[in-house]
Amino acid sequence: MTKLTAQAAGTFAIAPTPFHDDGRIDEKSIDRLTDFYAEVGCDGVTVLGILGEAPKLDAAEAEQVAIRFVKRAKNMQIIVGVSAPGFATMRSLAKASMDAGAAGVMIAPPPHLRTDDQITTYFKQAQEAIGDIPWVLQDYPLTLNVVFTPAVIRKIVMDSPSCVMLKHEDWPGLEKISTLRGFQKDGSLKPMSILVGNGGLFLDFEMERGADGAMTGYAFPELLIDVVKLQKAGKRDAAHDLFDAHLPLIRYEQQPGAGLAVRKYVLQKRGVTASSAQRKPGATITAAAKAEVDYLLSRVARVDRRANLQPQSSAAG
Amino acid sequence: MTKLTAQAAGTFAIAPTPFHDDGRIDEKSIDRLTDFYAEVGCDGVTVLGILGEAPKLDAAEAEQVAIRFVKRAKNMQIIVGVSAPGFATMRSLAKASMDAGAAGVMIAPPPHLRTDDQITTYFKQAQEAIGDIPWVLQDYPLTLNVVFTPAVIRKIVMDSPSCVMLKHEDWPGLEKISTLRGFQKDGSLKPMSILVGNGGLFLDFEMERGADGAMTGYAFPELLIDVVKLQKAGKRDAAHDLFDAHLPLIRYEQQPGAGLAVRKYVLQKRGVTASSAQRKPGATITAAAKAEVDYLLSRVARVDRRANLQPQSSAAG
Amino acid sequence: MTKLTAQAAGTFAIAPTPFHDDGRIDEKSIDRLTDFYAEVGCDGVTVLGILGEAPKLDAAEAEQVAIRFVKRAKNMQIIVGVSAPGFATMRSLAKASMDAGAAGVMIAPPPHLRTDDQITTYFKQAQEAIGDIPWVLQDYPLTLNVVFTPAVIRKIVMDSPSCVMLKHEDWPGLEKISTLRGFQKDGSLKPMSILVGNGGLFLDFEMERGADGAMTGYAFPELLIDVVKLQKAGKRDAAHDLFDAHLPLIRYEQQPGAGLAVRKYVLQKRGVTASSAQRKPGATITAAAKAEVDYLLSRVARVDRRANLQPQSSAAG
Amino acid sequence: MTKLTAQAAGTFAIAPTPFHDDGRIDEKSIDRLTDFYAEVGCDGVTVLGILGEAPKLDAAEAEQVAIRFVKRAKNMQIIVGVSAPGFATMRSLAKASMDAGAAGVMIAPPPHLRTDDQITTYFKQAQEAIGDIPWVLQDYPLTLNVVFTPAVIRKIVMDSPSCVMLKHEDWPGLEKISTLRGFQKDGSLKPMSILVGNGGLFLDFEMERGADGAMTGYAFPELLIDVVKLQKAGKRDAAHDLFDAHLPLIRYEQQPGAGLAVRKYVLQKRGVTASSAQRKPGATITAAAKAEVDYLLSRVARVDRRANLQPQSSAAG
Repeated sequence: MTKLTAQAAGTFAIAPTPFHDDGRIDEKSIDRLTDFYAEVGCDGVTVLGILGEAPKLDAAEAEQVAIRFVKRAKNMQIIVGVSAPGFATMRSLAKASMDAGAAGVMIAPPPHLRTDDQITTYFKQAQEAIGDIPWVLQDYPLTLNVVFTPAVIRKIVMDSPSCVMLKHEDWPGLEKISTLRGFQKDGSLKPMSILVGNGGLFLDFEMERGADGAMTGYAFPELLIDVVKLQKAGKRDAAHDLFDAHLPLIRYEQQPGAGLAVRKYVLQKRGVTASSAQRKPGATITAAAKAEVDYLLSRVARVDRRANLQPQSSAAG
Repeated sequence: MTKLTAQAAGTFAIAPTPFHDDGRIDEKSIDRLTDFYAEVGCDGVTVLGILGEAPKLDAAEAEQVAIRFVKRAKNMQIIVGVSAPGFATMRSLAKASMDAGAAGVMIAPPPHLRTDDQITTYFKQAQEAIGDIPWVLQDYPLTLNVVFTPAVIRKIVMDSPSCVMLKHEDWPGLEKISTLRGFQKDGSLKPMSILVGNGGLFLDFEMERGADGAMTGYAFPELLIDVVKLQKAGKRDAAHDLFDAHLPLIRYEQQPGAGLAVRKYVLQKRGVTASSAQRKPGATITAAAKAEVDYLLSRVARVDRRANLQPQSSAAG
Repeated sequence: MTKLTAQAAGTFAIAPTPFHDDGRIDEKSIDRLTDFYAEVGCDGVTVLGILGEAPKLDAAEAEQVAIRFVKRAKNMQIIVGVSAPGFATMRSLAKASMDAGAAGVMIAPPPHLRTDDQITTYFKQAQEAIGDIPWVLQDYPLTLNVVFTPAVIRKIVMDSPSCVMLKHEDWPGLEKISTLRGFQKDGSLKPMSILVGNGGLFLDFEMERGADGAMTGYAFPELLIDVVKLQKAGKRDAAHDLFDAHLPLIRYEQQPGAGLAVRKYVLQKRGVTASSAQRKPGATITAAAKAEVDYLLSRVARVDRRANLQPQSSAAG
Repeated sequence: MTKLTAQAAGTFAIAPTPFHDDGRIDEKSIDRLTDFYAEVGCDGVTVLGILGEAPKLDAAEAEQVAIRFVKRAKNMQIIVGVSAPGFATMRSLAKASMDAGAAGVMIAPPPHLRTDDQITTYFKQAQEAIGDIPWVLQDYPLTLNVVFTPAVIRKIVMDSPSCVMLKHEDWPGLEKISTLRGFQKDGSLKPMSILVGNGGLFLDFEMERGADGAMTGYAFPELLIDVVKLQKAGKRDAAHDLFDAHLPLIRYEQQPGAGLAVRKYVLQKRGVTASSAQRKPGATITAAAKAEVDYLLSRVARVDRRANLQPQSSAAG
């Protein structure tokens, strides 16, 4: 596939890693999931991110999962999360993924980084470790516990010619997008793609602030795709109307920790994956939560028929 | 006023502290804010919480603000946040507030608590410090950085006869409510009120899980009141319909740090407070954010006419 | 008293706050403690620091303690810790202390500060709050959980004409002193006093790296005074010989949390304070720990006879 | 080799991982280091701990290093640190190490664990992942950021028949040893070995509180061995005399982060390893720090001639 560039835009799904109920990797569901993302119109897929339970895989499994996604994707770019406690592991996975045809890699900071210098030094060394592979900087303080100022992001990006994208998921984060776009206007920051995450909770306004698209794991990537397209077409009210219809479920999925169980449940309900199992340590979804999700789906379906999962859900509801 | 009991229910607004633009306390706006909460039908008001910028007041100011609210409230119970780095300060404010007629106090844990023992010991000592004053336990890990298990909450509550309420704002938190209500069913936890916070982001389902009401700072307490009542009346769909209409704004207000600026902006726009100023260190609201809030208000107003602030907002916008 | 300047040097004792066994402030012991510090030759005393259990006092008590120390001290400068969750409280205590004759105040960062900008902005606002009062910047990441780079310290100091001293207690911290002194050599940092804390655990080498003296709570300030003087006189081996004799006890006192109980025990044993009580929440010292301290004292006393506390200790051991 | 049991005692060195200057693993230095530990009389060696820069190795390298140590050790037990972000990686390394002849493995908690339940659940799942391999529980809050109460340690140990040892390095930690030994006396905790770490900073008293020995990385394991033996022989004063002579250097080595550079420098100076290089991200040792270490060594050597490295150090200094 073509490599990731600073012109990347649209919707990249964050993929969960499908497991069998006993914890083994479910390769057939990886294929089906990849096909699903392609069919609904995703521009790319990001694998082995936080949502992908990456740290629960050993090194061989991580390579296996990354390569399976890459081989199956046809017109979609695959980005591989290569965050690791050390640069040796990061480099190994990055090289294996790119050799198999990945478009780029994504790097999140380790949780102990505090000062601006510690942060910029870390990413400088990470870049040295992976060489000239195109990479995505992940900015997700809520989960990663590292706080980047806009100026720190600028320094990281300007220090690394191969950093082509920001996965923006600070919260609150609207002003950050405006500030970064302002840096580009004043010439102090080179062009780069900004895709937004944080479960899509602010996608409506993030597009208006200058984001190029979405990169997150909401179990209806169709919604992300539509909102991104409507906003780019200047159809503001229509974008918000559709977004608002999904927001109750988006919000429910964006619960820290618990959200993954919801997403795996919905994807299974949609028939995309065979099981909703997580590897240990993982969260499960209670019967009460399933009923709440089913109720939310039925409410979304009043506006967006794609959320009507009744035929498949007869037993689960 | 009557003291707070374990039978408390309904909607308690979390009040911001109104300041003049130069940072002085705005007592007239305290009065107007109190009247506003009474007029819309709040059952009570909680003052000097996190939203109330309590740590920015010195001891004399904190007493002054608490007493002003207490004196102005007529049929509403006032709960005073007395969280403090030390028990001497906590005790002083708690006594002064109760002497003035407050219904109870609220205590949040200091951020360094880690083990179950550290947490339960802290609240045991806090209870000793304030004596038999009815108090509310605040459980807000996202902001307070202290994690309570349901069993720890049970121990704190069972160790303290005067702990009558939980301000529940864990996230995710739905299962926690179910677990605590289960403890009461199995007889291991005494009756206690559970009011939910976290900006109201999950109020719809929290009521279904067994909450007694809401205690949060959303700038339309009318919405909280209505959802609580509709859910108690068993009108589930109507509750969700109304809630969902407000959710885009609820979500916007629930941004950590930035949310207070939004709330003060909306309350000022509603004519309740004279200024939206915060004391330093505080967040401000940009013109872009104001425009976003105005847009959200106009969208909410399509369903809930109380959000139509156009006439009043000509100067404030 | 004269105000604190960037030329301050020598030994400033960090004073514990003496309490009666029932938790009331022990004013007579404050007087005796102040006299003791003067008699052994301290250049100054810092009160209401972390060691002084400052957060456990309410606002009136904090003023009372600060003023008592200030009034009693004759030729010694008193620095008052004014760290507080908000600037209103900080300002009140700072003004009251200076009005009573304090030499300056000390400010530590609140624990939530992360980025370089957050840190420098906080101290800029703190300086605005206290006006032109001379102040000490406290850099103690182990306890305060905020990490300053040397460049951040430089920016804080250069932005504030009235910041005259650094209380240096980073760990490890030797290179930081060298870097800051290097900044002064290259002209990018103005003259400022650097006194070292962290229990004195590295005082021996910190003096060689360029510190101006000690500011810490070791229960034998005589040792700090002697090591500072010997190092300034160029008597390196003698400084280390004396320091090393005390190091086993210095280390024992420098245990986080537990150290204060040890110090209060030793000061009581030395006859300086009436009680070793702490306010809740506080640590106590077990019989086993007392016996260990007594043993350490007896070993120090083989080299430094001032540690021979046998006559007074017959009952306490 | 024989497997690790609850009767383990004496001194286990924590081994650094030797690298060439360019970051490659230095296998010859692994051999020499293993021989060195055997020659001075260590009872065992722990590899791939925090000191061993384990997270900087990829999976293949970690196995390679562990096996190299295991194969070289003759009468010494090798414990392999298998802490990992996920159980799959933990299991892989544990199995490979045991197959090669390791005596057991060591597991530290991941940094996000907070409540007692989270901690005990994690170790229950870790135990399931590694099966019946004997394992060591590492309790090191200063670095690992997870706080265990004695009761939590008891629960972990009682839930896992194969947990045979505690690597105790809480700080302060003396009372914790006494409490755990008390649990054993009252019958609520099974027999287990307690070896102490934290750089050896409290080894003198920890032995008196009931520790079975030392497991730490001080560059003179001879000192650890001697103090453990003297204390077991009841020669208290002699143990402290020797310990105190080394304490200035022990303290210097125990600086967080910087300490590893000091240890690698001393081991290189002793002729045990070829290089003092660390993999990135790593600390370096300045010329000033080297001179300070040399000075400390010369002072230790006045009492303990093994610290006289003058002849060997002519080139390395």
